[in-house]
Amino acid sequence: MKTIKIAVLPGDGIGPEVCRQAVKVLEAVAERFDHHFDLQTYLMGACAIDATGNPLPDETLDACRAADAVLLGAIGDPKYDNDPSAKVRPEQGLLRLRKELGLFANIRPVAAYDVLLPHSPLKTERIKDTDMVIFRELTGGIYFGEKGRTADGEGAYDHCTYSRHEIRRIAHLAFQAAACRRQHLTLVDKANVLETSRLWREEVREMAHQYPEVTVDYLFVDNAAMQMILNPKQFDVVLTENMFGDIISDEASVIAGSMGLLPSASVGEEVALFEPIHGSYPQAKGKGIANPIAAILSVAMLLEHLELFSEAALVREAVDEALNNSVLTPELNPTAPYTTEEVGNYIAFWI
Amino acid sequence: MKTIKIAVLPGDGIGPEVCRQAVKVLEAVAERFDHHFDLQTYLMGACAIDATGNPLPDETLDACRAADAVLLGAIGDPKYDNDPSAKVRPEQGLLRLRKELGLFANIRPVAAYDVLLPHSPLKTERIKDTDMVIFRELTGGIYFGEKGRTADGEGAYDHCTYSRHEIRRIAHLAFQAAACRRQHLTLVDKANVLETSRLWREEVREMAHQYPEVTVDYLFVDNAAMQMILNPKQFDVVLTENMFGDIISDEASVIAGSMGLLPSASVGEEVALFEPIHGSYPQAKGKGIANPIAAILSVAMLLEHLELFSEAALVREAVDEALNNSVLTPELNPTAPYTTEEVGNYIAFWI
Ligand SMILES: CC(C)[C@H](C(=O)O)[C@@H](O)C(=O)O
Ligand SMILES: CC(C)[C@H](C(=O)O)[C@@H](O)C(=O)O
Repeated sequence: MKTIKIAVLPGDGIGPEVCRQAVKVLEAVAERFDHHFDLQTYLMGACAIDATGNPLPDETLDACRAADAVLLGAIGDPKYDNDPSAKVRPEQGLLRLRKELGLFANIRPVAAYDVLLPHSPLKTERIKDTDMVIFRELTGGIYFGEKGRTADGEGAYDHCTYSRHEIRRIAHLAFQAAACRRQHLTLVDKANVLETSRLWREEVREMAHQYPEVTVDYLFVDNAAMQMILNPKQFDVVLTENMFGDIISDEASVIAGSMGLLPSASVGEEVALFEPIHGSYPQAKGKGIANPIAAILSVAMLLEHLELFSEAALVREAVDEALNNSVLTPELNPTAPYTTEEVGNYIAFWI
Repeated sequence: MKTIKIAVLPGDGIGPEVCRQAVKVLEAVAERFDHHFDLQTYLMGACAIDATGNPLPDETLDACRAADAVLLGAIGDPKYDNDPSAKVRPEQGLLRLRKELGLFANIRPVAAYDVLLPHSPLKTERIKDTDMVIFRELTGGIYFGEKGRTADGEGAYDHCTYSRHEIRRIAHLAFQAAACRRQHLTLVDKANVLETSRLWREEVREMAHQYPEVTVDYLFVDNAAMQMILNPKQFDVVLTENMFGDIISDEASVIAGSMGLLPSASVGEEVALFEPIHGSYPQAKGKGIANPIAAILSVAMLLEHLELFSEAALVREAVDEALNNSVLTPELNPTAPYTTEEVGNYIAFWI
């Protein structure tokens, strides 16, 4: 029996509570399928700053490098957000981890669950049957360019850069995904204003010849932000750069009726990382109201990545069971809510 | 009787058709109130490139400088969007005009009209009584920073910069607006990643002391993109930088049920410019289906800017009349639609 090493980074806020349920599900899968998962927990984010002064301690980075996959809860703490002069921030840990592990593609599936349609802020007929995957570039663009203050202290700058290579490697993944889905790729950019966007358009247009079965559309990001709400069903695979992807994918999350449902995979060179798309939601910490499903579906993506397809399918079935029986946290079941732990127990038990 | 000079830039696509109705309304106002509007039309955008090779001919810029106000239709043509190598683009005309006229603040009111609630993709209870104004910085940030290709042709860059001065002048307008409204300002930024955002947060936090009656909130742009749909009523005045404002304000437009309803004002140093927030929508050009109301409400904002308050109020009343009687273009009245011109005639006649 091969041991599968999974580095678990619970992080901050509700991260640890949702991670605990995800780990419980992994343990249930291990038992059911007779796998051996070696699950070790490491510090990252604000908790790592508090403990070591470093948002991404070496030990954590080394463990992630040595792992078969990484499971992350969430990071971030408001005490850093409101202090623009803070030199060390939890986000630096996550950004550095993405860069060091070469996680250049963040993959976020967005689907409307039928049972949850009443919870969406969008009208049912607009979103029913929505099924898209957003490919967000994750290690380039304005996130990783030079940034700083001008010498006189009166100005600040952030540089956005992209190379053809950075565009191509994620675009190939997106084209391949589109080819296996509904053969439709939408590039979201701002090519009428940005030079980097024009480079994206050039590359994607050229690459399209290699994927003749895929229809490619080009949308300006402002228009995409509207279309995402007006007619989300039009999207199959959405490809975009780092900052636009951050905005558009969080916007798209409203379709599902709760952020608490959406997982993501960050893939690239070697090891891959799996995390809910929601943040650390500090106001909810410790209250037992955080939805663990996004973290649990991140586990399903992790299992698929390890090619444990039956295992992943069972996790998804168990989640569907919870959804269909309203075993859900208060944002989705305000009248008879379950706690984070009860939802986790239900799903793990079902496996 | 003082002559009021208004430079009209119809632009491309549906720009000329909606502008024609807006001009008709201005003429009705002139007749009713015995004003003299000197309305001259100039080229800008793709039409100006076609005619002169320059998206913003000198004649147009000079006329705008000499005018009391500028009324713009829309600019843009897909033939430029899909040619990343095009050296001259319609958008350059608009961007240069904004810069040359010092139009540093783009002001976009977003409200949910009761009669149109059924047309919104959002559920009624979420958006009823939404009433916000977005202040988007318009002459700085990544739109106007250095941009280009790297020497080896393998990369591209766009630089985002902001100075304290650029932040302060628009923030003052936003604080003042908030003080006259519901005393609530939300700064949208990405201060957990961008240095420019941290400068925005610093300045706004400091300025807040001068406006003690205004409550200030800070939202990351990814979260703002969600909140805009989940709970738009929480917003009163939203302040943000150029690129985030482009995305967030277009996203917010879905609340109203149609982009075709939303006007904007761009103000700054001297002359101000008024335009619908919608684009040139080339597919609709010449079909008589474009909604002229955004352009007509831009006229109302223009009149308010000139302190012609009764005149503006009458234009708004006339628009309400059209809305209440469903004298509307097909996107809002699919069963018994009116043409662009019929809607314009109805509103002008009512004045
Ligand atoms: C925490 C933050 C730096 C991060 C990002 O902007 O990438 C988050 O919003 C995300 O989307 O994973
Ligand atoms: C046409 C384009 C350059 C422009 C912008 O991005 O500013 C438009 O989208 C707008 O919002 O006025």
